[in-house]
Amino acid sequence: MTENKIGFSKLTKEEKINWIANQYFANPKEAISVLNQYQNSNEALQKLHDEFIENTLTNFYLPLGVAPNFNINGKNFTIPFAVEESSVVAAASKAAKFWGARGGFKTTILGTEKIGQVHFLYEGDKQKLKEYFNFIQPVLLTETEEITKNMQKRGGGISKIELIDKTEILENYYQLHATFETKDSMGANFINSCLEQFAKTFKNNSENFGLPSIQIIMSILSNFVPNCVVRAEVSCPVSELNEDANITSSEFAEKFVTAVKIAEVEPFRAVTHNKGIMNGIDAVVLATGNDFRAIEAGVHAFASKDGKYTSLSHAKIENGIFTFWLDVPLALGTVGGLTNLHPLVKFSLEMLGNPSATELMEIVAVAGLAQNFAALRSLTTSGIQQGHMKMHLNNILNQHQATKEEKRLAIAHFENQTASHNLVVDFLENLRAK
Amino acid sequence: MTENKIGFSKLTKEEKINWIANQYFANPKEAISVLNQYQNSNEALQKLHDEFIENTLTNFYLPLGVAPNFNINGKNFTIPFAVEESSVVAAASKAAKFWGARGGFKTTILGTEKIGQVHFLYEGDKQKLKEYFNFIQPVLLTETEEITKNMQKRGGGISKIELIDKTEILENYYQLHATFETKDSMGANFINSCLEQFAKTFKNNSENFGLPSIQIIMSILSNFVPNCVVRAEVSCPVSELNEDANITSSEFAEKFVTAVKIAEVEPFRAVTHNKGIMNGIDAVVLATGNDFRAIEAGVHAFASKDGKYTSLSHAKIENGIFTFWLDVPLALGTVGGLTNLHPLVKFSLEMLGNPSATELMEIVAVAGLAQNFAALRSLTTSGIQQGHMKMHLNNILNQHQATKEEKRLAIAHFENQTASHNLVVDFLENLRAK
Repeated sequence: MTENKIGFSKLTKEEKINWIANQYFANPKEAISVLNQYQNSNEALQKLHDEFIENTLTNFYLPLGVAPNFNINGKNFTIPFAVEESSVVAAASKAAKFWGARGGFKTTILGTEKIGQVHFLYEGDKQKLKEYFNFIQPVLLTETEEITKNMQKRGGGISKIELIDKTEILENYYQLHATFETKDSMGANFINSCLEQFAKTFKNNSENFGLPSIQIIMSILSNFVPNCVVRAEVSCPVSELNEDANITSSEFAEKFVTAVKIAEVEPFRAVTHNKGIMNGIDAVVLATGNDFRAIEAGVHAFASKDGKYTSLSHAKIENGIFTFWLDVPLALGTVGGLTNLHPLVKFSLEMLGNPSATELMEIVAVAGLAQNFAALRSLTTSGIQQGHMKMHLNNILNQHQATKEEKRLAIAHFENQTASHNLVVDFLENLRAK
Repeated sequence: MTENKIGFSKLTKEEKINWIANQYFANPKEAISVLNQYQNSNEALQKLHDEFIENTLTNFYLPLGVAPNFNINGKNFTIPFAVEESSVVAAASKAAKFWGARGGFKTTILGTEKIGQVHFLYEGDKQKLKEYFNFIQPVLLTETEEITKNMQKRGGGISKIELIDKTEILENYYQLHATFETKDSMGANFINSCLEQFAKTFKNNSENFGLPSIQIIMSILSNFVPNCVVRAEVSCPVSELNEDANITSSEFAEKFVTAVKIAEVEPFRAVTHNKGIMNGIDAVVLATGNDFRAIEAGVHAFASKDGKYTSLSHAKIENGIFTFWLDVPLALGTVGGLTNLHPLVKFSLEMLGNPSATELMEIVAVAGLAQNFAALRSLTTSGIQQGHMKMHLNNILNQHQATKEEKRLAIAHFENQTASHNLVVDFLENLRAK
């Protein structure tokens, strides 16, 4: 580990790769060649991607696929998905086609409020703190003017700053709880910059006001955004709902609604139900250069906000009309961050017509609802494994270097039969032992 | 949209690309060339990646970076991260070095239980249903033998099947609630295949037993795995804790513990706190070919399981010792799925010494704890923006085609000053206007 002593991060990319290959691999040359086959031959492009993060060795491939035929509020979209899981794009495409023939997807923005907090401790008179807050509030705004001026030009900025007393849950704990409007940017850097300035201003002026004991703990945006929410919805007469000959439309509608109700009342099911929604959401979030960890955290916290983890989507039958909808918090951006930097993100956004942040919220929510619809339709009719295994089967066959003929036989064999990785391997082994 | 009528999915990859370029882009040629610069020149390799999902257009790049110097249970690791967010790898590397000098990371597997359910409706005598369940239970096991035999060879299989009465939360709703041990595979296909067979067996034999009204709604694994949990931990004397000249070790320790306590009691903070943990976790999950949506869903549901969304990590000071730990549910696999199929996943796993699934749980949890430590250290000392903007600054400068000299000036300018995207752009504009 001699190289390590001079600092791994100081090595060139090539030196890093050599060190790792020699340190951890039985066949260092082969390890290096695996990494190298993923480097881009365009040096400037490779450098751009290398510099997104630290200690980059190569480019990790996720397939970028598309699902066409999405009708959203009357407009046609082809949606990009960056995802490694087979059948996500196929499910989206099917759902898009199905609902495209039934009026398409409708969406509504329910809010776009972002949140950030300065967390601090204060020992002393509460009334005095309130007076200080009233005094300092305009100064917090003035001293962030440099940061907010461009955002204000675009119609955004700081919406509100509140002093919140949290001493009942933790001794001496208070917050400056601020709400923001960040327009087409996700706003993380903007919000954090504002908050850190709030903290400085708030602390720096406190002693002169006679409040020596304020201790800033930290200043940071929240990924819990229960007021930055979009609704996506589909509906049609029950009679037009089903395409499956094995079940009537109304049986299907009832079963579908029951499946959603189960996800509403039973957390073990709700978690997986929402995970399926996120298969669609994250893939579009990634393809459009947004941060899926932020979205995931906000979404699942939203699903648990009333004390019990529950479904994000809901379904009902009323007067012969089936309606299925999803409310989901999505703090997304279409400017800033990676959106203008990653050429495939730019591609994805242009394919979507260069949407505003709220339009992207609508598209992403629709991708989630479509995914959920497809999953529930499979689950309540043929089962999840049939569709999933069809794609996965192909992957397993590739992995075991199946020939064209072996693939044909395997696909025929597992057409009407439950398949698992092991069963497929057994099948191939039997075939080859013949 | 004539091509669409013959079915988009039936087009060749080239035809799909052409259709999209002509449908949505002002400059179709340019759009095609953006996609093409990401195709791999090795045709077989490109085909492998294309076939992971449907309608693949090209390869979406995520940087694959590494953080060296992780000491986990006395063993040295370099951990792979597939992530687009700047500073995640830098933060991991710093935390690894810091704790490497203080005894390293310790981990404990607290459980490996996976869960799956058959959800069904039943109207009728509850006692009769119980009798049927007792009768059918061994048959459920016999009729899944084909599916379970390979898993059993590896020491796994079906651990338990229970009948659960959920009629109090939804009329006529019951479950077959099964637990599984899936060893080194994540087990989704295995579990779903078992469950679908349970459902068939359970339904098919019910009429003969005099229970005509059983209606299977769906059969599916749960991503909520509160008994598939790993603990990662670090500790050291408070006196050895700090490296920052601006704050004493004990002040830092107290402030750090307060920051964690805030995340324990305040959901708006907890969500972001856990999001930071997931920055580390998801990046390793992706690099090792696992499904981050499944992990995300399980983790955030775990964080909300006691009725209020809370921190996954905890910290304390006892007898002069600082301890910081994380309990996190991680249903991971190191065989099956993409693990043997994606060459960079194979690379990542070999770099980690080809870990078992439980070893990978340990490594991933450590990546999460390291990330959380680094984030809290920044937040409670210099603030999050300084470190974050250093990397992000570089991205913004690249985006605006800054020259070497402009970069040097910008980096110097923003060294000791709050930066935001807009401020950086302003700075560049001013520089260029001179």
